[in-house]
Amino acid sequence: MLNDNYSVKNILNDNNSKIKTKITKIEQDKLITRGHCQKNLIENLSYIEMIYLILKGEVPSKKIAKILNYILVSFCDHGVTPPSTQAARLIASSGSPINVALSGALLSFGKNHAGAIEKSMELLQNIVIEYDLNDSISDENIEKIAINIVNEFLENKIKIPGYGHRYHKKDPRAEKLMEIAIKEDFVGIHTKLALAIEKVLIDEKNIRINVDGANSGILLDLGFSSKEGIGFFIIGRLPGLIAHTNEEMMDESCFRKFLTLDDIDYQGKTDSHLNF
Amino acid sequence: MLNDNYSVKNILNDNNSKIKTKITKIEQDKLITRGHCQKNLIENLSYIEMIYLILKGEVPSKKIAKILNYILVSFCDHGVTPPSTQAARLIASSGSPINVALSGALLSFGKNHAGAIEKSMELLQNIVIEYDLNDSISDENIEKIAINIVNEFLENKIKIPGYGHRYHKKDPRAEKLMEIAIKEDFVGIHTKLALAIEKVLIDEKNIRINVDGANSGILLDLGFSSKEGIGFFIIGRLPGLIAHTNEEMMDESCFRKFLTLDDIDYQGKTDSHLNF
Amino acid sequence: MLNDNYSVKNILNDNNSKIKTKITKIEQDKLITRGHCQKNLIENLSYIEMIYLILKGEVPSKKIAKILNYILVSFCDHGVTPPSTQAARLIASSGSPINVALSGALLSFGKNHAGAIEKSMELLQNIVIEYDLNDSISDENIEKIAINIVNEFLENKIKIPGYGHRYHKKDPRAEKLMEIAIKEDFVGIHTKLALAIEKVLIDEKNIRINVDGANSGILLDLGFSSKEGIGFFIIGRLPGLIAHTNEEMMDESCFRKFLTLDDIDYQGKTDSHLNF
Amino acid sequence: MLNDNYSVKNILNDNNSKIKTKITKIEQDKLITRGHCQKNLIENLSYIEMIYLILKGEVPSKKIAKILNYILVSFCDHGVTPPSTQAARLIASSGSPINVALSGALLSFGKNHAGAIEKSMELLQNIVIEYDLNDSISDENIEKIAINIVNEFLENKIKIPGYGHRYHKKDPRAEKLMEIAIKEDFVGIHTKLALAIEKVLIDEKNIRINVDGANSGILLDLGFSSKEGIGFFIIGRLPGLIAHTNEEMMDESCFRKFLTLDDIDYQGKTDSHLNF
Repeated sequence: MLNDNYSVKNILNDNNSKIKTKITKIEQDKLITRGHCQKNLIENLSYIEMIYLILKGEVPSKKIAKILNYILVSFCDHGVTPPSTQAARLIASSGSPINVALSGALLSFGKNHAGAIEKSMELLQNIVIEYDLNDSISDENIEKIAINIVNEFLENKIKIPGYGHRYHKKDPRAEKLMEIAIKEDFVGIHTKLALAIEKVLIDEKNIRINVDGANSGILLDLGFSSKEGIGFFIIGRLPGLIAHTNEEMMDESCFRKFLTLDDIDYQGKTDSHLNF
Repeated sequence: MLNDNYSVKNILNDNNSKIKTKITKIEQDKLITRGHCQKNLIENLSYIEMIYLILKGEVPSKKIAKILNYILVSFCDHGVTPPSTQAARLIASSGSPINVALSGALLSFGKNHAGAIEKSMELLQNIVIEYDLNDSISDENIEKIAINIVNEFLENKIKIPGYGHRYHKKDPRAEKLMEIAIKEDFVGIHTKLALAIEKVLIDEKNIRINVDGANSGILLDLGFSSKEGIGFFIIGRLPGLIAHTNEEMMDESCFRKFLTLDDIDYQGKTDSHLNF
Repeated sequence: MLNDNYSVKNILNDNNSKIKTKITKIEQDKLITRGHCQKNLIENLSYIEMIYLILKGEVPSKKIAKILNYILVSFCDHGVTPPSTQAARLIASSGSPINVALSGALLSFGKNHAGAIEKSMELLQNIVIEYDLNDSISDENIEKIAINIVNEFLENKIKIPGYGHRYHKKDPRAEKLMEIAIKEDFVGIHTKLALAIEKVLIDEKNIRINVDGANSGILLDLGFSSKEGIGFFIIGRLPGLIAHTNEEMMDESCFRKFLTLDDIDYQGKTDSHLNF
Repeated sequence: MLNDNYSVKNILNDNNSKIKTKITKIEQDKLITRGHCQKNLIENLSYIEMIYLILKGEVPSKKIAKILNYILVSFCDHGVTPPSTQAARLIASSGSPINVALSGALLSFGKNHAGAIEKSMELLQNIVIEYDLNDSISDENIEKIAINIVNEFLENKIKIPGYGHRYHKKDPRAEKLMEIAIKEDFVGIHTKLALAIEKVLIDEKNIRINVDGANSGILLDLGFSSKEGIGFFIIGRLPGLIAHTNEEMMDESCFRKFLTLDDIDYQGKTDSHLNF
């Protein structure tokens, strides 16, 4: 008896027989998401508002929804250059279905690729906390802090996350996002800091903020944590990955060679004719 | 010489040394997606318009963007019941990062889960082509066709894709989508057919259209093919999967037991004490 | 009360409260796999015997284990040419951990890549069933059947699965496997058929059996179904994929460019300066 | 001209036009892996020797091959309890093919699951380096070090990686592996340390070494690094995952419910009937 109860109590969870969730309540013929009937959500919410609601638990203001829209569009596509796009195409070419190709793309969002936004957000977040910064900081003071940070990185010869791009000198997406943040009067302390760091980096190394850096400032000012940044990258990039997978499936031959024997430089041992 | 040229010609592609794409042109400091500078897209497009643009190559009308918004919101979440959500949580609990957990969710979008929308779209598409249907068909004639189709499935005891739901008798999302399609005057031949089939199925088996069936009609009327349906499902569901992964990571203990030994019924051989 | 019981009864399964399995019995401090205490298995089984035991439920004969060993070694590696190897390297380069890179490789085992062995096994299996073939067939008769099959494919201009290789005229692995099968006196009806088809194909098109075709015959003669073939491919290829992932992680720079802008041929629209 | 050369030079790599590898040389009709013709490997190597060769670049001694065999068999299966097995079954049930289900299993090998062996190997490796330990250490001295280590962990209330198991008090696999290591006279400094830590932990907390801890010692003594440990886990576990995926596909109904509505405890907001 005790055993049975124990068993039930632990069936899907150490502490409780039930799977706990705060996101969606499923009843027969009724779906409540974050406190709202899905019928109402379908009729009344923009998809951007839906994204914010399901992640944060509340419907965003029109201003926040507008800012979030800029962010998502800015992540839309970088052609066939990223490993994620290439992975999706390789997998599609091998004959796997589209959800599998997209899944492979997501696996390529490692710490050097989409994961970069997390590192960038962490940096800004940590500086703001460490120096106890807020909106009232003077331009002069934030510049001093930026100089300290940049010099620390440069002295240690470490790349500052969120700055520089392997294909661009001036990432056009970052430039536009920063321009909009100013125009929309949406420059919080994190964006202010991101811009201050850029200013110093331009002076010292002619390196500019990239799309990750720009969105890091804005996402932090919107109240998202560094752990949440990559989610927006994935949402924003997904439709582009679908477009590339479709293109591979429709316009290219199956199982095409992505390289030939002449592209390979074998640097290992040659045949040793060993006797086993 | 011939060999070398051949090698170059085939370096990333059977027919051409270059990777071909029509989606995004990457130049230093300039990104052109589907013919538009990304700077302009960031400033001017809603994320829904961006999705349509990148997939179809053109900016949608306001009406189409509105319809697409309904579709994407309707896919937002079905709680912890789908295998995709469970896979994401299991993987997150094992200590893998969020992009990896989401990737696992996408792997669960097999032909019995998200793949269902493809089958549902194929069915409607095939009937429309086979019977050469168009918008001018009379209610009487489409009902006759629907009766034929339904009876064929019922006689063969095959589930009609897009109808019935394992947790709902009346899928609230489908109901709302069909109501909106009528209100918005967006009932093309595929939606008309989907509704006609539902009418017959309700009479004969009290089975109703589900969210996949409703969106199948609308997506086909929007001009998307059956192969493209699952892409919208994935876009629409992704933010919900992020929310579940975040919830697992933040609210649950690491590597929790999703089942206990008492939940397992071992039906194999018992120890045979074989001598090897 | 009724509800609670119902809940327990259905907790992980429609029909039964328990997860059913015949593979391994888990008790505290005791693991029984396919009827054998794991302690005994660790001490007494070769890894090849273990693979067979867990898949088929019984310890193989020494002969079968030997044959299975040839198969697994033959799948070991094809360098950086397959999409699976490239996907693993791309994902590793993006900063994802090794299990994630390997997972991406497995996603590339679509129907055009590792899936080819399933198609090849199905073909041989279907011919054997359709023509009711067995070991006693004369060389003359099996040649007639092979001619029929080959001509049918050639007339329809369809590639015969298991024959031809995009990098080899004479796949050395297939050649060795067929030589061993003959030497070991392990040529059942499926291998006999595979060799008969090869003979005709060499005469007509100078195309030879490949590693998938050779292993298809042997695996079918071992009693495995077409659905099981890909499993052996994956087991055999996995260590090679680990070696490539390690090589990428240790010998190459992080997030290296797998292509440059000059390698891309943009064929889409140029900037349209649309007014939104 | 310069441009073309540049393009070719950079096609798959920043610094070099060629993909570099030391693993397998692919020529038409010839495959050289780690310096050996694959034809020879197929005929002469056991699969265990093949695994070692492809990972380390040389054929192992008979003794090493024997030890590696124990390790791989010990990882064979832990029934349906691990998240990896559950993920594979969920994905298979959704209608995805077997390579995709296995891929999902690998995604579940996060730092709390298969990743545990890396942490365990790191711990032993670091202690050996920090204290400059070697085989000649006395039992008394290694016990002192073990006491220090254990106490440090216990004081900080951190679980020692490689010890304790959520389903077992005495992991039978670890017990057998340690028994074999002693019998085979294969107890190097890392295994010696692992056993010394276990002795202290049994005395203080009645916690014993688990399969990860035991294999960590042996793999380190074999000369593998902590980064390489997870690869052996994955190789060893893969056949068991294939068996589970096959079982799910053949013995269970498609898209079965892994939980029912009664198993879910919704803790979020109830319908707020908000006006939008």
